[in-house]
Amino acid sequence: MLYFEDLKPGDTFATPTHTVTAEEIIAFARQYDPQPFHTDAVAAQASLFGQLVASGWHTAAVSMGLMVRGDMKLDGGVLGRGVDQLRWPRPTLPGDTLRVEMTVLEIDPVPSRTDRGRVKLSCRTLNQAGEPVQEMTARLLVQRGPSFAKAVESRRT
Amino acid sequence: MLYFEDLKPGDTFATPTHTVTAEEIIAFARQYDPQPFHTDAVAAQASLFGQLVASGWHTAAVSMGLMVRGDMKLDGGVLGRGVDQLRWPRPTLPGDTLRVEMTVLEIDPVPSRTDRGRVKLSCRTLNQAGEPVQEMTARLLVQRGPSFAKAVESRRT
Repeated sequence: MLYFEDLKPGDTFATPTHTVTAEEIIAFARQYDPQPFHTDAVAAQASLFGQLVASGWHTAAVSMGLMVRGDMKLDGGVLGRGVDQLRWPRPTLPGDTLRVEMTVLEIDPVPSRTDRGRVKLSCRTLNQAGEPVQEMTARLLVQRGPSFAKAVESRRT
Repeated sequence: MLYFEDLKPGDTFATPTHTVTAEEIIAFARQYDPQPFHTDAVAAQASLFGQLVASGWHTAAVSMGLMVRGDMKLDGGVLGRGVDQLRWPRPTLPGDTLRVEMTVLEIDPVPSRTDRGRVKLSCRTLNQAGEPVQEMTARLLVQRGPSFAKAVESRRT
């Protein structure tokens, strides 16, 4: 497991892949983004997209699932404080196989707490052609390691 | 239905409400954010949150569903170009009843196209106590009205 102290700017992490089916696109959209270009392959042909496309929020949810299953295993989990600059340069299409590339941009201890630090992470979701379907900068809260906690404790006592 | 020409900065729109159950939180998280504080009420007690909480991406998906069902009925649908400043100031808890308040921040025609304009929209998702669980600025592409298209056409001919 990784702690805040293990991360430095420039570190990169990868994820497994996930192939998004038309059925999954439609099921997500029926519940969370019920618009014809996400729920109905025929009606979608008359839309701006010209075909069925995944909701951007579906691409975001799939990306999160891949990140949780990826090789950046953070002790205490992936705690999102928020996101800057979430963009969908092209839609996820039925049959697309997605993966996420993560790069640490900034690390920053939280002055008011000894147990966690802030990490800014670039996350690019790519399709099977290597084209980005999502680009975002995520702000995470990452647990500090036991050695750091012990050092703080010994300074206090 | 509303067109780009119908929107001006300061316009506000509302949505219906949706009550998020523990079952829905767990079902979403198992598929898209499988971390114990989102999938397991008992394990969640030992987490930073101290109880089961919804994934931020679940709050985002529920918010999108409410916006699509809300009173900002855009002809051509809600086409998101991306999001700035997505924040989750507090988590969505089981039983929370959410709604979204939307406010038009900026409108901006797209110089290169006559059929659509850009709209920047503030979207605040509130729980039953009126506390924000999500704050974001969304960038939309909004269809222009038939009268505008006709005016452009007549200028051309």
